[in-house]
Amino acid sequence: MSLIVQKFGGSSVRDAQRIENVADIVTSTYKEGNDVVVVVSAQGDTTDDLIAKAQEINEKASKREMDMLLSAGEQISASLLAMAIEKLGYPVVSLLGWQAGFDTTSDYGSARIKKVDASRIRKELDKHRIVVVTGFQGVNRYGDMTTLGRGGSDTSAVAIAATMHADLCQIYTDVDGVYTADPRKIPGATKLDVISYDEMLELATLGAQVLHNRSVEMAKKYNIELEVLSSLTRRKGTIVREDNKMEKMLISGVAKDDNIARISIIGVPDKPGLAFKIFSKLASKGINVDIILQSIGRNGTKDISFTVEKNKMEETIELLNTYTETLGASSIVSDDNVTKVSIVGAGMESHPGVAAEMFEALFTRNINIQMISTSEIKISVLIHKVDGDRAVEAIHEKFFDNI
Amino acid sequence: MSLIVQKFGGSSVRDAQRIENVADIVTSTYKEGNDVVVVVSAQGDTTDDLIAKAQEINEKASKREMDMLLSAGEQISASLLAMAIEKLGYPVVSLLGWQAGFDTTSDYGSARIKKVDASRIRKELDKHRIVVVTGFQGVNRYGDMTTLGRGGSDTSAVAIAATMHADLCQIYTDVDGVYTADPRKIPGATKLDVISYDEMLELATLGAQVLHNRSVEMAKKYNIELEVLSSLTRRKGTIVREDNKMEKMLISGVAKDDNIARISIIGVPDKPGLAFKIFSKLASKGINVDIILQSIGRNGTKDISFTVEKNKMEETIELLNTYTETLGASSIVSDDNVTKVSIVGAGMESHPGVAAEMFEALFTRNINIQMISTSEIKISVLIHKVDGDRAVEAIHEKFFDNI
Repeated sequence: MSLIVQKFGGSSVRDAQRIENVADIVTSTYKEGNDVVVVVSAQGDTTDDLIAKAQEINEKASKREMDMLLSAGEQISASLLAMAIEKLGYPVVSLLGWQAGFDTTSDYGSARIKKVDASRIRKELDKHRIVVVTGFQGVNRYGDMTTLGRGGSDTSAVAIAATMHADLCQIYTDVDGVYTADPRKIPGATKLDVISYDEMLELATLGAQVLHNRSVEMAKKYNIELEVLSSLTRRKGTIVREDNKMEKMLISGVAKDDNIARISIIGVPDKPGLAFKIFSKLASKGINVDIILQSIGRNGTKDISFTVEKNKMEETIELLNTYTETLGASSIVSDDNVTKVSIVGAGMESHPGVAAEMFEALFTRNINIQMISTSEIKISVLIHKVDGDRAVEAIHEKFFDNI
Repeated sequence: MSLIVQKFGGSSVRDAQRIENVADIVTSTYKEGNDVVVVVSAQGDTTDDLIAKAQEINEKASKREMDMLLSAGEQISASLLAMAIEKLGYPVVSLLGWQAGFDTTSDYGSARIKKVDASRIRKELDKHRIVVVTGFQGVNRYGDMTTLGRGGSDTSAVAIAATMHADLCQIYTDVDGVYTADPRKIPGATKLDVISYDEMLELATLGAQVLHNRSVEMAKKYNIELEVLSSLTRRKGTIVREDNKMEKMLISGVAKDDNIARISIIGVPDKPGLAFKIFSKLASKGINVDIILQSIGRNGTKDISFTVEKNKMEETIELLNTYTETLGASSIVSDDNVTKVSIVGAGMESHPGVAAEMFEALFTRNINIQMISTSEIKISVLIHKVDGDRAVEAIHEKFFDNI
């Protein structure tokens, strides 16, 4: 008998029919003799509908009250799923985040899980019940409802799996696994059977949108085997696990991220300490910087370019403008008409030619590279947005059509 | 400075505009220097919508999961109201039933409040915050969500008022007070300034639908002054309080209840113990019996008639049919084409002629009385349904047009 945690996203529980489908998956797993804990997101558009209701009343509602409002979404989907499981004749109980022992920080809207006290879940499993838990939510030290922010339900599922030493954590979503590229855009994209945590992390960060990286980080830390699969096709998905047993593929995927903007600080004095000043200022405002490029100093000045999330561009520019004088910069320029294309692969470490092959693929399509960033298992390039899809196609062809 | 509890029903928070109206009422009370605790029901049709969602999935969903589902309704309305109050610039916090300390029995769907631990509410009031609490819900000894059943939010409000020794508990609804009869039907119906708990209890039980009797019973027990008023007209409502300071009105109101059916057991042996057997059997099945009439024995047999809620009629007949032989009855007959019309008034006790006047009013309109039931402050008659409105009109005219 195994303990299996299954997480279903909003589209998997969109309506009564989808909920019945999920109940069928869950009870099939239970019938095979497993203990099953199910984590659900809010139904389809519920969260958006609730946000719209709030905005109609107060566009600047406090995050505390937003969390109180939004956590009703998973409460509805969890109880409905429990009812569907009851209908199939299986013992089940639904639990809210606080009942399931989710103890979080107090950062409303983006709380982090501090601890999961799984005693209630354990007690219900001991009674041979299927346990349905609301994802995305918890309770802070004041006893107030919190939500975990983007990708929170994945993280809820992995946190339960980690705390309870689950044998497998299945993340059901609307794609049936992790692909070498976006299968809607690249016809030759193929599904991976296995991918390592690190590769998945790079892909998640790079905009592959399959798993949120907080959940992958946690799975890696506690060595929880994840499976990404579809609640509709019911085929075997992609396993995410430690890579020591895996054959190392050279490249495991190509990803594209359009939610990005480039900012350049032109003509700052070529003196030490400047990068520190700039980026600590941005960090203090919660602005995450991705690729950073610094030009070689010429005539005593240099340029510093970096990328931020697109919706942080205006704020970043405003902030930098108030410091232009202090920094001694001549101007601040920005461009959000860019995209980041990346390749990820654990095998890259031992194959120094990978970057050159990627650049060659772009060159053959006459695509200009604005910035380059590399890690041990990832290479990213910043290019003009209009070239994005062609770039992914070219790179995918280069690395995967020969496999 | 006073502590005022204000309760708003579903129609008072139906949409964004109504919620803003409620926020205005609440903050006006706060501005006058009062501590304010607000209890809200779910918005308009939310509860019905949630029930429909559940029914689509499982018509026989467990009550536990129904309570989990339904309690999301007040969570949404409470957080939205808090946001509207924030927008007006006042400090506010919303609390769920379990956060507000509502400790209930485990009877899902119709739980009773065992205790309110108001320490969290008190703490928030001490921080000068307006406190919005979800009505209708609590948590049982297992830490599971419960709902209080019909009229539950009124009871939540009175329970807070009782626990915290509030100076006033205002019940905002869609009528602006308690009337001598249904003002939509009887043009001459007038609003009462004051009514006693007992009179209000009789009226509530008799179908006046203004306040649920559980809340009035609790208000009476803890001597909490209630005010029934409208969230739309903002006029002074009707005060419900102990009657010792009141001028005793002869009659305080006329009420009609159509949700009723009459059942007669014909030809049972005229022996002791039979009524006990019948009514204890019904009570054990949770069937509440209202008016009971027993005919004088003739030829060694008698008839027993009584009324039950209309939706219990079939169940009652089935139950009695299985006992016909044991009872020695010749037949069971029933009629749900009846209505109960009642007059209530604390002054009745000292005016023995009231019943006669009521019967006279019905006689002048040629309305036949099927059954009669009286208490110290109430007289009810069972009549044919078609005569209902005319009966109320006749009685109202008799007692109120002379005042």
